[in-house]
Amino acid sequence: MNLSNRVQNMKYSPIRKLAPFAEKAKAKGLRVLGLNIGQPDIETPELFFETIRNYSEKVLKYSDSRGEKVLLDSFIRYYADLGFAFTHDELLVTNGGSEGLYFTLYAICNEGDEIIIPEPFYTNYSTFADLAGCKVVPLTTYVEEGFHLPGKEKIEALITERTRAIMITNPSNPTGTVYTEEEIRRLAEICKEHHLYLISDEVYREFIYDGAEFFSPLSLPEIANQVILIDSISKRYSACGARIGLIASKNVEVVSSIMKMAQARLCVPTLEQVAAAELYHTPRTYFTRVNEEYQNRRDVLYEGLKSIDGIKVKKPAGAFYLIAGFPVKSAEHFCQWMLENYSLQGATVMMAPAEGFYGTPGLGKNEIRLSYCINIQDLKLAVEILRHGLETYQQLKF
Amino acid sequence: MNLSNRVQNMKYSPIRKLAPFAEKAKAKGLRVLGLNIGQPDIETPELFFETIRNYSEKVLKYSDSRGEKVLLDSFIRYYADLGFAFTHDELLVTNGGSEGLYFTLYAICNEGDEIIIPEPFYTNYSTFADLAGCKVVPLTTYVEEGFHLPGKEKIEALITERTRAIMITNPSNPTGTVYTEEEIRRLAEICKEHHLYLISDEVYREFIYDGAEFFSPLSLPEIANQVILIDSISKRYSACGARIGLIASKNVEVVSSIMKMAQARLCVPTLEQVAAAELYHTPRTYFTRVNEEYQNRRDVLYEGLKSIDGIKVKKPAGAFYLIAGFPVKSAEHFCQWMLENYSLQGATVMMAPAEGFYGTPGLGKNEIRLSYCINIQDLKLAVEILRHGLETYQQLKF
Repeated sequence: MNLSNRVQNMKYSPIRKLAPFAEKAKAKGLRVLGLNIGQPDIETPELFFETIRNYSEKVLKYSDSRGEKVLLDSFIRYYADLGFAFTHDELLVTNGGSEGLYFTLYAICNEGDEIIIPEPFYTNYSTFADLAGCKVVPLTTYVEEGFHLPGKEKIEALITERTRAIMITNPSNPTGTVYTEEEIRRLAEICKEHHLYLISDEVYREFIYDGAEFFSPLSLPEIANQVILIDSISKRYSACGARIGLIASKNVEVVSSIMKMAQARLCVPTLEQVAAAELYHTPRTYFTRVNEEYQNRRDVLYEGLKSIDGIKVKKPAGAFYLIAGFPVKSAEHFCQWMLENYSLQGATVMMAPAEGFYGTPGLGKNEIRLSYCINIQDLKLAVEILRHGLETYQQLKF
Repeated sequence: MNLSNRVQNMKYSPIRKLAPFAEKAKAKGLRVLGLNIGQPDIETPELFFETIRNYSEKVLKYSDSRGEKVLLDSFIRYYADLGFAFTHDELLVTNGGSEGLYFTLYAICNEGDEIIIPEPFYTNYSTFADLAGCKVVPLTTYVEEGFHLPGKEKIEALITERTRAIMITNPSNPTGTVYTEEEIRRLAEICKEHHLYLISDEVYREFIYDGAEFFSPLSLPEIANQVILIDSISKRYSACGARIGLIASKNVEVVSSIMKMAQARLCVPTLEQVAAAELYHTPRTYFTRVNEEYQNRRDVLYEGLKSIDGIKVKKPAGAFYLIAGFPVKSAEHFCQWMLENYSLQGATVMMAPAEGFYGTPGLGKNEIRLSYCINIQDLKLAVEILRHGLETYQQLKF
């Protein structure tokens, strides 16, 4: 029985590619320090579980396709605090940011249309583009430049008559880069001039370090009609398993066209929405504490990597990832080798080779994405494992 | 800013089309008896909420993309009780049956491939086909024949070289029809001969009345490799808002190709899965009680409709819907008229014109889908409202 060509061409998640080797390492009795995934170890605010426990409806009914009113209200208040005014018809609750991304691409692209995305990018973007039948056109950025965006001309050179949007994650997964106000204005100007949508995935909005300012294209009224915001509570409140995301846009036509798809899948889980709505009341101190923790971890990982001979890395200002260049021919081979052959104090490390985050074939072969969702002590150990593992690996001259 | 042609051609849910008129009726102070939707009023087993309340993890983490192990185990036990053996790699938990349907179509169809579906069919099937870029080829069935399937030749006449599957809902939403063993064997034979998948959406499996036997194509080992089962706990346990569905197939290649899409959307909500896993322990008496209730309602609605002059209806044996032919030119006009102009004892009825459930243009114009998810007393009142409303409407000679 045949499968579609489309699904056969689709890739498995490169983040989980090395999972079998991690399993084997665990089977040998090793601790595997996970520098490969973005699952925060921070506790979900107790408010979430409390609301769940207090739910007293007897029938777990469908929610509205647009989202539970209490959750929409909660998002409206959250954005109002940031200085952005939204109304109900400009919002639509989605199954995580993931569904929002897919719905958005489907709504704005015809089969074969193009989306420009700075690479390296979140790998699942490729799958959402596959599902929506559109093509990712990668805009290459470089580790040496801290993965910041190139000048206007280089971006415009990628625009064709099939281009429908520029899509960014800001702060970025996988690079941790936070785009400056100037960069966002540059993108907005290009989108304005070429009539493109600007899809801004801001799920890491709160994770900004060194007192940097976050700048959203939502601040630019001149392209309000072209900006589509993707959001999620997953990282903000360490509630990845709740799968609560959001599409927000001042372009009501976009949102209401997406309602057609939302109606077909009926709704996002009711209970999770009701609980997510309460998260708005999480005290600001929660974020301060969480950010301090992540900033410390970032420092440990960044300083650690910088102190290892041959590793190229720039200090990232946001999210909880970075991509570093390694003095190896194949980062994938090195990552696998580490899991299979190297341990220190009963532990080894699992990392994500960065090649899978690039759209351009051949790029990122010697780069690795590292996340810092584990505690400082383990992170320090991970750096030492990496330092000595790399030394050993290099002597083997693969 | 343009939208894609695809999304512009997509339709809003016809089930909710009349919602604004229902809102107006409510604003006038009327009770609106909802015969239009499949939201059961039956209580969700307390076990579900109990499990939710007892959840003690501090971090609400991502679940596995295939599903929580406890839930997969629970589904495996559930199918084993029905006589069907499944292993983990043959299952994949989805966001409701909806996501399962969409993933399946995408996995087996190339752009423009065809799926044969008996019409009238669940309207969202059209949207899932649109999303997957495939074409629904409707196989017409008739109210006079209780919406049972035509003979083998009529079905085979629809097969082209682009046909990839036959897809059924059994018991059927929107008709309530339960296909006989002979009908299922007929479909299986056709699928076997023409190398087609048989997608069997069995989310209403437990809702069978008059002691009828349910027959699944899972019972036919000769096409095991071609059957893709779509399931959901929404109706079974009156847990629509949990959004827990499942894809099951002995064809591991199909399931693992769908894993690529599942990985991209990361996971189905963790907490809901953990709670859904416990629902397996719901005592059988729950289903007996629920089925008695639905069977009584079905009888009230069916006998009531049968007693109204000019209404054509066959007794449905499953689910909680039926489609009846009405002595009106436009069922949509009649449904809207009822909401706007007719009430009895301070109540009116909301129904779903059946035209939206047909793929063939022009069919179903004088048919209406009615659900029986409201209590018997209200259902009796609804029948009387319909009887007198129809009488009045006919005198107006639209």
